[in-house]
Amino acid sequence: MQIVLLSGGSGKRLWPLSNDVRSKQFIRMLKGTNGEPESMVMRVYRQIMETVPGAAVTIATGKKQVSAIKNQLGDTVNICVEPGRRDTFPAISLAAAYLKDVLGVDAEEPVVICPVDPYVEQQYFHAVKRLGELAAEETADLLLMGMEPTYPSEKYGYIIPEDSEAVSGVRAFQEKPDLETAKRYLSQGALWNGGVFACKLGYLLKKAHDQIDFTGYQDLYDNYSSVKSISFDYAVVEKEKSVRVFRYSGEWKDLGTWNTFAEAMDGETLGKVTLNETCENTNVVNELNIPILCMGCKNMVIAASGDGILISDKGQSSYIKPFVDRMEQQVMYAEKSWGSFTVLDVQEESLVIRIVLLPGHGLHYHSHEHRDEVWTVMSGEGRVILDEVERRVKAGDVISMPAGCRHTVFADTELKINEVQLGRDITVEDKIKHELT
Amino acid sequence: MQIVLLSGGSGKRLWPLSNDVRSKQFIRMLKGTNGEPESMVMRVYRQIMETVPGAAVTIATGKKQVSAIKNQLGDTVNICVEPGRRDTFPAISLAAAYLKDVLGVDAEEPVVICPVDPYVEQQYFHAVKRLGELAAEETADLLLMGMEPTYPSEKYGYIIPEDSEAVSGVRAFQEKPDLETAKRYLSQGALWNGGVFACKLGYLLKKAHDQIDFTGYQDLYDNYSSVKSISFDYAVVEKEKSVRVFRYSGEWKDLGTWNTFAEAMDGETLGKVTLNETCENTNVVNELNIPILCMGCKNMVIAASGDGILISDKGQSSYIKPFVDRMEQQVMYAEKSWGSFTVLDVQEESLVIRIVLLPGHGLHYHSHEHRDEVWTVMSGEGRVILDEVERRVKAGDVISMPAGCRHTVFADTELKINEVQLGRDITVEDKIKHELT
Repeated sequence: MQIVLLSGGSGKRLWPLSNDVRSKQFIRMLKGTNGEPESMVMRVYRQIMETVPGAAVTIATGKKQVSAIKNQLGDTVNICVEPGRRDTFPAISLAAAYLKDVLGVDAEEPVVICPVDPYVEQQYFHAVKRLGELAAEETADLLLMGMEPTYPSEKYGYIIPEDSEAVSGVRAFQEKPDLETAKRYLSQGALWNGGVFACKLGYLLKKAHDQIDFTGYQDLYDNYSSVKSISFDYAVVEKEKSVRVFRYSGEWKDLGTWNTFAEAMDGETLGKVTLNETCENTNVVNELNIPILCMGCKNMVIAASGDGILISDKGQSSYIKPFVDRMEQQVMYAEKSWGSFTVLDVQEESLVIRIVLLPGHGLHYHSHEHRDEVWTVMSGEGRVILDEVERRVKAGDVISMPAGCRHTVFADTELKINEVQLGRDITVEDKIKHELT
Repeated sequence: MQIVLLSGGSGKRLWPLSNDVRSKQFIRMLKGTNGEPESMVMRVYRQIMETVPGAAVTIATGKKQVSAIKNQLGDTVNICVEPGRRDTFPAISLAAAYLKDVLGVDAEEPVVICPVDPYVEQQYFHAVKRLGELAAEETADLLLMGMEPTYPSEKYGYIIPEDSEAVSGVRAFQEKPDLETAKRYLSQGALWNGGVFACKLGYLLKKAHDQIDFTGYQDLYDNYSSVKSISFDYAVVEKEKSVRVFRYSGEWKDLGTWNTFAEAMDGETLGKVTLNETCENTNVVNELNIPILCMGCKNMVIAASGDGILISDKGQSSYIKPFVDRMEQQVMYAEKSWGSFTVLDVQEESLVIRIVLLPGHGLHYHSHEHRDEVWTVMSGEGRVILDEVERRVKAGDVISMPAGCRHTVFADTELKINEVQLGRDITVEDKIKHELT
């Protein structure tokens, strides 16, 4: 069985823990199994591995998330990289072409498509597995998961089933309604559309070729920007006659705001935090190296990262977006495929960064036009290449790289490096990649 | 006229802005005159210079504060350094001996002694000046300032005057009372003892020699640890027959807790702070480089520095001390006589620091036994001396100092340096000072 996880959104609603390069699904704040907190992506992937043994997982996502996915899941998942953002129908079509042309998946194999960020129990993935089996058994061309609603929500689309059986035909699809309409849907036994679909790979490929003119994966990838932006719901689901819905009644949460996110946290606090005895219903996440002391805080959510500090009443926390939009955004922390970087100091003509390289990983071979750089190895061992000359490095070694010098470093053990960037015009754009010969 | 400012206390009540090396009087948070916020020390010194022209100011303080005083006031004030902490009578005796033996002040000159940290208007220093004049005019041997109480406080000692004249004899001195007793004192026309005294220098010297066996300043300094710890009130004031009290009715605040300190702040916020429209009666000081966003905060005080972050209900903020006592205290930021240092990164076997050296200043010549250090000059120009060899340095230069290497740096223009410390046993104690030959 193939499982395709759709991973989108840069997401500012969970600032300062989410930013342009770290979407909410990569924040490590949920209760993990080995004592370490895990992210939504790590949690969902672990749950799939535990519930659907033998499933092959492919993550369909944009370029910016590739580093974070590799950092958190390693090389065990397939990643289908979208060259741009074109809504879910092009993304799923590209993923289908990827499965066929890159991974060689048979057209008869069932595929389940899910969002990457639901907060759910194992039961949900048992349902995902069942949905894939229903597709394999040819119960219908397209199978949907319908969530039993717990309240008349205005946030979701609705599926009106033909009957109340576990697997049922579909009478109608409905857009996000207003409150009164939602109440009427509920009285008709409607289900939320949770964005989970199953079908055979061949079905996806046929729908893609019907609506997009392309020869195969590479062709679609190369011409992705000219493909029409449209959702899979509009392009496929709502037009399909051979469609059935499978009922799911377990827990299913969207952790889209601090208020809901805080509820799923592993305990009241994460990181160096002290709450005095007069604090009530307050959650604190501290990714900084310095302690936070809270006294008399009530119904608050507090989050601190290298990007900034949020101190908010829980009710107010859902109104964060316009404030974050206005903030100057310098990414202060990012997880990369090779490790992570943290901005430590920003001065007028210099920038100090801590680089952590995972064992066996290295940077791209690159140079800068407008800045000099100095590395001081803080711990670990590895190899540095400067203008094609390789040398071994260890803690205490200093490497000076004037502007123009081609450089990279590879870690044999975990390498921590203090990098000082010097120049009048320090930007992330000033980076020229080179081939290592 | 000589003015002696007593500057004591390390003070944890204003954590995280105050720490072992930065007492509350050095926090730059009050409204200054040139648009830049100023500290209590800077404010008091400026007010004295404006109100008592020609006054010579001496600050009596401990070793730990000398750097911060020089950083904030420059070399214009005299500093009488106490070799240890022995309460106010030994401190004032040492300051008297310092005035006579080091500064050569005449025994007939009046001296006013005040705490360094009252939050007051200019009117207070007009009263200080008047108190000194009353001492010069021999109105009495000892003159006190009596603050007209605004409520029956249990925090202050009381002076019961003989009458309600501007200058009056003293009927009695009273310890800090309970509430009922304080109310009775107020009905008797009592005044708060504000810890401000005036007399001639000769009077102080006589009292010192009467109770302490010493020959002069150097002798007292050398044997300071064997002097009995006792307050000036107990040892001198309460025994004095020739004493009069001068009434002061202006504003006089003790900014000892976050609640009172916040009221004196220059505006609601300092530093990178956004308060949304639902915040009420909330003060935020942010010394960090990252933004703070507050939403729906009511009656709160928030303070962030390199040492930590306090998020507190205003009422709760006075109960901070036991929590700070329990916190592991690594000083993350300190102002020194030569500039400042900021800890940027703490790793297991390394530490990264930003050093800012003021023009014309340098570090002590020193070495470390157990750690290597690497400097990367971020901006500015100066001279480095390594094992007696001097060289010029500028932005981009890198200096490696293995353990044992004697080193220092002098700034010609303001110098910013990134320092990486490397070793298994990095401590502030590992510092051997050397003479520069």
